[in-house]
Amino acid sequence: MQDALLLSARPGIICFALGLPSPELFPIGEFTNACAEMLARGPRALQYGPPSTELKSHVVSLMRARGVDCSEQQIFLTSGAQQAVHLIVALVLDRGREIIAEELCYPGFQQIIEFYEPEILTVPTDPKSGLDVDKVEWYLARGARPAFIYTIPDGHNPLGVSLSEEKRTRLLALSQEYSVPIIEEDPYGFLSYGTSPLKPMRAHQTDLVFYVGSFSKILAPSARVGMLAALSRRFPVGSEWIVPDSGVYVWVRLPDEFDTTHLLETAVKKYGVAFMPGSVFSVVRGGSCARSSLRMNFSYPSAARIEEGMVRLEELFSYGDRLGLAPGHSPGDIFTSWFSQRRTI
Amino acid sequence: MQDALLLSARPGIICFALGLPSPELFPIGEFTNACAEMLARGPRALQYGPPSTELKSHVVSLMRARGVDCSEQQIFLTSGAQQAVHLIVALVLDRGREIIAEELCYPGFQQIIEFYEPEILTVPTDPKSGLDVDKVEWYLARGARPAFIYTIPDGHNPLGVSLSEEKRTRLLALSQEYSVPIIEEDPYGFLSYGTSPLKPMRAHQTDLVFYVGSFSKILAPSARVGMLAALSRRFPVGSEWIVPDSGVYVWVRLPDEFDTTHLLETAVKKYGVAFMPGSVFSVVRGGSCARSSLRMNFSYPSAARIEEGMVRLEELFSYGDRLGLAPGHSPGDIFTSWFSQRRTI
Repeated sequence: MQDALLLSARPGIICFALGLPSPELFPIGEFTNACAEMLARGPRALQYGPPSTELKSHVVSLMRARGVDCSEQQIFLTSGAQQAVHLIVALVLDRGREIIAEELCYPGFQQIIEFYEPEILTVPTDPKSGLDVDKVEWYLARGARPAFIYTIPDGHNPLGVSLSEEKRTRLLALSQEYSVPIIEEDPYGFLSYGTSPLKPMRAHQTDLVFYVGSFSKILAPSARVGMLAALSRRFPVGSEWIVPDSGVYVWVRLPDEFDTTHLLETAVKKYGVAFMPGSVFSVVRGGSCARSSLRMNFSYPSAARIEEGMVRLEELFSYGDRLGLAPGHSPGDIFTSWFSQRRTI
Repeated sequence: MQDALLLSARPGIICFALGLPSPELFPIGEFTNACAEMLARGPRALQYGPPSTELKSHVVSLMRARGVDCSEQQIFLTSGAQQAVHLIVALVLDRGREIIAEELCYPGFQQIIEFYEPEILTVPTDPKSGLDVDKVEWYLARGARPAFIYTIPDGHNPLGVSLSEEKRTRLLALSQEYSVPIIEEDPYGFLSYGTSPLKPMRAHQTDLVFYVGSFSKILAPSARVGMLAALSRRFPVGSEWIVPDSGVYVWVRLPDEFDTTHLLETAVKKYGVAFMPGSVFSVVRGGSCARSSLRMNFSYPSAARIEEGMVRLEELFSYGDRLGLAPGHSPGDIFTSWFSQRRTI
């Protein structure tokens, strides 16, 4: 992940790899003024202090806009959503216990749970309606008692899909029936492109849903148009994707002969374009769907850079199907040379 | 701890309770300029990014000033030293395992380990030379294999003592002989009042010492004079304390008839002065030495407030030995009414 961040800063590279907000929209002037104003009020901002009640009140009002009623006492402020998920996992997961997670999920989550060596009961994700609740029920009905169910119900990372209303209701009912907590990670809930965004599950259930929000994606979000049109022009025949309702990603499945992990090195070195290969997100090692898929971010590059990046990808893909493996290299090796900490991104 | 922080902000209260830096010395102007300058350079400061290599280089040079050679790759930046200790403990401590810690230690550390329910092998601390290494050796020689040894070797919290050179050498030798890691927390190492501050243990041992530093105590430190003179004038005959070589605390043991936990409510309500009662730091419940002791911070109140606070404490102590328990209250109850989360501070 750190290598990918360094890559994103290189001027020649068009980076679709990471879920970064668009730098040209950062409110730098406002932020500078806000800092100066806070510090001018006195040393309190630099002193140890209890977690800010003003910020908690602001979070409460944001949550209300998401349809969630809560109080300041229920808000726990952390340094990033990753820290929040880590603390929750530490609270509820004992080493080696079962958890329920999707076959494809956010690598930062995989990094957290790896330490606890859980048995992951994986469920597939439908590209249009989200997590497969039938499979969750199947596990629970057969006696599984996982420490928690983890999902990103809006703007799923990496799939971009939002969980349907009916599935939210059923998942909540299962959670209650079997007393299994849900960790609901919601960094993209405010970035909804549909007409009526759904409420998070925490709006309906207080006791069993740990809701994790984030300012990192909404402080300076951006929305790009035309991308999806470019996909159909530039991507190989047989490629599949779903227009996302929320979030900052589109998940593209290329025809099976493509290995996106393998293509990445050529993409970066020869074509100056970066993406996240699907296998990074796969909990199940060697799943062929993830192997030929890639996650494209559309919030970080500008519209013009997206267009140019698509042209470069088109060239890559027409080259890609002729590409053999370099002598002595496996796809894993090549990937590792770009992202040296494969197991931890 | 949060209640104590709120207390420290009340204008009428002279607060000796917490290890806060002095607000009148905060470099507010410089900090405001630094923020504005960083933001003027572009959006990078607001964007996701790998941990700052500039900050890591700065930490490396600070460590060199403490006698420690290390590289940027060995620095791990966290949001506060508490997070660093938490991550280390999570790495090395399995639930229910043994650890070695002092009878009196930093409550933030107790809060971290509580979750792992370790068996704490306690060692006493000599007020002049620090942690009792003989007792550590006694445990190890009898077959104990603790997950780690935890200590604050410079400006010990709450005792203010610094570990002697001879004891550092012996503790390192034991750590190596029995392959037991040391967590060396060093927030006060730069606040040394002696002529030649000792090197941290990390300077001598790379593999088995986790060194945790902090900017929170050194960004705006302060040093007060005369306090210690006031102690002998104002505190009851029979009180004992050691002049600290480092850190921001002095530990005072009052005659045995005083119960500082009990006195705190009266101190705050009637005399407008706050301190940390010794029992907060005690790993061993009900130890009589901690019961009659208190930790005094001397970095937060100004010199004039220290003097005034000492006058108030003198009045409290002369009243204190006449003080009976309020009907229906135990010392624990009274304490709990001030610090509602006793077990977690």
